[in-house]
Amino acid sequence: MDQTCVDVKRPDTNEEQCTHQDKTDADNTEEKLISSHKHLWKPWKHERSRIRDCVLCVKKTMVSLASMEWYCYALLGMLTALISFFMDTTVTKVLNAHQWLYGCLKGHHLLQFLCWTLYPACLCALSTGFSHSICPSSAGSGVPEVRAILLGMDMPDYLSLSNLFAKVVGLTCTLASGSTVFLGKVGPFVHLSTMVGAFMNRLHVSCRGGKQNISKGEMLVVASAVGVASCFGAPISGVLFSIEVMGSHYSVRDYCPCFFAAACGAITFRLLSVCSRDQETIQALFKTSYPAELPFQPFEIFLFALVGLICGFICCFYLYCHRWALRFVKTNKPISRLLATEKAIYSAIVAFLLACFTFYHSAGRFIAAELTMKQLLSSLLDATSWYNISQNSTGLPEPQNTFWQAWNPPDGSYFKTLGMFILTKVGLLVVACTLPLPAGYFMPVFIYGAAVGRFVGEVSAYVFSAKLQLNPGGYALAGAAAYSGAVTQTLSPALLAIEMTGQCTHAVPALVATLISNAVARAKHRPSFYDGISLIKKLPHLPSFIRACPKLASVQIKQFEIPTGVVLERAEGLTSVQKILNVNTETEFPVVDSHDSLTLLGTVNRSLLRDFLYEHKDEGLCKQLEEACAIQPVRLQLTPETTVQQVQCENKLD
Amino acid sequence: MDQTCVDVKRPDTNEEQCTHQDKTDADNTEEKLISSHKHLWKPWKHERSRIRDCVLCVKKTMVSLASMEWYCYALLGMLTALISFFMDTTVTKVLNAHQWLYGCLKGHHLLQFLCWTLYPACLCALSTGFSHSICPSSAGSGVPEVRAILLGMDMPDYLSLSNLFAKVVGLTCTLASGSTVFLGKVGPFVHLSTMVGAFMNRLHVSCRGGKQNISKGEMLVVASAVGVASCFGAPISGVLFSIEVMGSHYSVRDYCPCFFAAACGAITFRLLSVCSRDQETIQALFKTSYPAELPFQPFEIFLFALVGLICGFICCFYLYCHRWALRFVKTNKPISRLLATEKAIYSAIVAFLLACFTFYHSAGRFIAAELTMKQLLSSLLDATSWYNISQNSTGLPEPQNTFWQAWNPPDGSYFKTLGMFILTKVGLLVVACTLPLPAGYFMPVFIYGAAVGRFVGEVSAYVFSAKLQLNPGGYALAGAAAYSGAVTQTLSPALLAIEMTGQCTHAVPALVATLISNAVARAKHRPSFYDGISLIKKLPHLPSFIRACPKLASVQIKQFEIPTGVVLERAEGLTSVQKILNVNTETEFPVVDSHDSLTLLGTVNRSLLRDFLYEHKDEGLCKQLEEACAIQPVRLQLTPETTVQQVQCENKLD
Repeated sequence: MDQTCVDVKRPDTNEEQCTHQDKTDADNTEEKLISSHKHLWKPWKHERSRIRDCVLCVKKTMVSLASMEWYCYALLGMLTALISFFMDTTVTKVLNAHQWLYGCLKGHHLLQFLCWTLYPACLCALSTGFSHSICPSSAGSGVPEVRAILLGMDMPDYLSLSNLFAKVVGLTCTLASGSTVFLGKVGPFVHLSTMVGAFMNRLHVSCRGGKQNISKGEMLVVASAVGVASCFGAPISGVLFSIEVMGSHYSVRDYCPCFFAAACGAITFRLLSVCSRDQETIQALFKTSYPAELPFQPFEIFLFALVGLICGFICCFYLYCHRWALRFVKTNKPISRLLATEKAIYSAIVAFLLACFTFYHSAGRFIAAELTMKQLLSSLLDATSWYNISQNSTGLPEPQNTFWQAWNPPDGSYFKTLGMFILTKVGLLVVACTLPLPAGYFMPVFIYGAAVGRFVGEVSAYVFSAKLQLNPGGYALAGAAAYSGAVTQTLSPALLAIEMTGQCTHAVPALVATLISNAVARAKHRPSFYDGISLIKKLPHLPSFIRACPKLASVQIKQFEIPTGVVLERAEGLTSVQKILNVNTETEFPVVDSHDSLTLLGTVNRSLLRDFLYEHKDEGLCKQLEEACAIQPVRLQLTPETTVQQVQCENKLD
Repeated sequence: MDQTCVDVKRPDTNEEQCTHQDKTDADNTEEKLISSHKHLWKPWKHERSRIRDCVLCVKKTMVSLASMEWYCYALLGMLTALISFFMDTTVTKVLNAHQWLYGCLKGHHLLQFLCWTLYPACLCALSTGFSHSICPSSAGSGVPEVRAILLGMDMPDYLSLSNLFAKVVGLTCTLASGSTVFLGKVGPFVHLSTMVGAFMNRLHVSCRGGKQNISKGEMLVVASAVGVASCFGAPISGVLFSIEVMGSHYSVRDYCPCFFAAACGAITFRLLSVCSRDQETIQALFKTSYPAELPFQPFEIFLFALVGLICGFICCFYLYCHRWALRFVKTNKPISRLLATEKAIYSAIVAFLLACFTFYHSAGRFIAAELTMKQLLSSLLDATSWYNISQNSTGLPEPQNTFWQAWNPPDGSYFKTLGMFILTKVGLLVVACTLPLPAGYFMPVFIYGAAVGRFVGEVSAYVFSAKLQLNPGGYALAGAAAYSGAVTQTLSPALLAIEMTGQCTHAVPALVATLISNAVARAKHRPSFYDGISLIKKLPHLPSFIRACPKLASVQIKQFEIPTGVVLERAEGLTSVQKILNVNTETEFPVVDSHDSLTLLGTVNRSLLRDFLYEHKDEGLCKQLEEACAIQPVRLQLTPETTVQQVQCENKLD
């Protein structure tokens, strides 16, 4: 069996896997090389040929069922889900170890303090140091970069395998530092799956002998859907995310592959947890059980809308702080010098400070800091109203009891804890966002939104407690969707919240809250979280620039300074072509209508120009370029009046 | 209050609603006309001006909150939901009347027969006659036409208000004829909402005084999402449908409006049923209560995949029969003659024959024909396995007892009834599809798929009855999604099934089944249900043609015969322009690079050409067209090598 795998992956057996049609010249030379080596003795000749036949037969059967790219999509989904699952398992183990150690040190305040603070500080330093020494571009969420890549920018650094490795290890360390640092995994997972997608694309191309029948862009769009799907086991919101991340135009051709790969990823991710006995069957990640008979009263729609409104306003404040912090870190001299040279030390210091703040005996007990991120979300989404629990808190079942103890500390009330959580977490999150390590920023805002929603829900439950039994968990769900939707300026979080909790009954509330919070967040062309990063990092992502400065969309190309030196006219004569060839070293030259109108007609190759000069050297000046040289036409006609947005739109089609 | 409404809608008060910026010349002349009439006496002058001020103030506040098109989107959603709700109410009343009459005639077989057969026959005749006399293009589902319109075809007949009226009345009659004719309302509703959308667009344009800041296409895409959303109260699947219906490229700019309008439509639709006391709160249309603890065993995924596979194969057979029937009706002389002259009689005859077959005392009792379509779907989606009921059928609660009696008639078993239903309904459905009346074909295939799924589920429940308690309702859900997805070759039915039933737990099974059935249905470039209609009706919908004949996509434009008579060269001289102007009457002429290369550069106006001739009549032949005439450039450069698919893609961007 092992032999088979080796056979499939070894490049020198390439010619056996490709059908005759696909063979290119490169293969043929390779074949000759191999045949000259054939007379060398190799072990198990007979067995090898039999296995080779088997592989060929299997491949034939597979291709007869569906074309090769569908297997690539399936493999992409499964691989990403595998990475996601094993990362989750590792993180859970490390977190459990931390909790066990922390529990063992009960009574020793100093030791507990050291355990609480040094653990995340070391992990953050490790994450930063490791990822930066392997691949510096692995830091951050990666979504802004993925957006730029999907719009056609060439950023090979961000799709390399070394980046993949650095990101996986770094992200595991970041997640293992727990709720102290309060960072998530969605964004990096979109980036990770894009890297896996780029790798699958290279594999697919090499497997078909250099011939390609899916574009790289297609594979990357599919990968972005897979990222979200295999992170939460939520296939449909993954597809919606891939539509939103595209920015301008979504090719409907990618829709089915996206769904297919996302379904493969989500099913693999959930089946793995069934296999590992975490779950009994395929079900939602944060399964809740809300009353199905009367999930909410009709009038509550207005309260859900209120949650959306509040989330929208808090989001504007948060994004403003976030942009300010990013700019501050970049411009403040001591910090920027530290960040330039000693990133790991910066991370360790920040993580230590965050941990000091969240330590139980400092401010931690007022913001339920001892709960992990999963426990925080589960407790906020819980259907039982805390008002009811406060009336009768004896005999609570186990996980609920821990949650209740955390949210209702001896020297406080649950309202105070929730309020403190909402007030302080904005600041802590903004500080955490400046850490130069691989980390996601979606899950933290999702949980934060859940807290905001829960607060509104608990207040409503308290107010209406005499007449009605309200479910504050539903408010938390709507708040999570609304706040994360507003921060990223997308609508897919509404569906994601539903898929994560399995609560279809709350689809309308989540959607209403998300729409309203999005309306507030998008007003006056405010940039989203990712737009802000794109702008500060100066990433080549036009939609961000256009959102920040709407006038840019209608800027005409002629308003840029067009370099006139290397542009050929269609009626260019022999001597000027000779001159241009001597002065410039480009391999391709643009051909315009005339130097006055500057309407781009196409391009012409350097080698073609050389031939043209050679052939017509006797005819002197009378021969024109267009008569003798084949101009490679461009499908898109660029005139100086074309606007920036038109160019961007049309560029997307290639 | 009434006065206000009149004021808003009267075209002569237009200038009051428009801000000063928007005023065009047309408005100014209108204003003058009005001011000249101002001295005429009008009643309630003071009150009128006060109300006018109020309207202006309200408008100012509204526009300061969000731009006008968002109100149009909201109104579009609400209007469509209103139509949908009142149609449902009317249909339910008519159906109840039929059932009451049928019940009264118990014991009188002949009278019952007449009641059963004449009722749908008359309604179908009425539907056909009415819709054809008002607007012949209102027949059929309308989705193929909407797809062509969304791709940029101009088909004003299909978007007129008379068509809207004909379609609403016709569709109500069709639905009122019940499960005998077995037709649905989704397709026509997409068409209806598109018509409402086109109307809203005209309103928006006239409201802004001829100035338009959203394209008509945008409003129509939004309308297509609203159609599905307000038909079932399922906003997210409406958006997915609007993506799928676009065929090639989806503009992400339409994504938010689609979500917003679909949410408005869905919420209005569901709130109306809350107001009418049909439902206690906003919840799913076909609410089910599946066990949440363990919705399905992991191994059942394979059974769900099997459901998808079976649905895919049945779908291929069904679509083949459907295309055959459409062609037969068109080519068979007696039928086509009848259809050409007496459409209503044809409808009446077909409906009568269908009713004869489904009468209880003929074959009706073997195919549960007495249940309405809603009852059929509810009974198939029910969680309790029929095997369990058959073991202990005493003391069933009321709706379940009726369903059980229908599926398990005295002289048969539920397996036999389900089998007969699956076998005969394909034929009945194909016959019903030839009826020339406004009707949807989605709901019937959805129910049919549910029956197929239920059959597999019941067999599994019977086989595993000794060890496990399986839920055949889940299989019905997966089957419904898979079969309707395969017939329409879309994936949104998977989400629709979940939104309709509120069962998020079965998202993965539904998705798996739909993906597999789609794979089978799309294999070998088989056209979908709508593609088949497009091809037979010869609608200008390129994706259908390309699916039926994939070679078409790479056909180059030069392979078409290009009319050379009316094409101008850029270097065209005075005399030839004069000649062309004399011979042709077009208002616009294409300008090409040269008559040899035929690369399209742009267009030029007839009036411009006339000016050109007039100005340069003294200079004779030496003046060329491009030097003196401004050529309106096209953004897309068409060369004879451009393929059909490229043209279609790029056309979508305008």
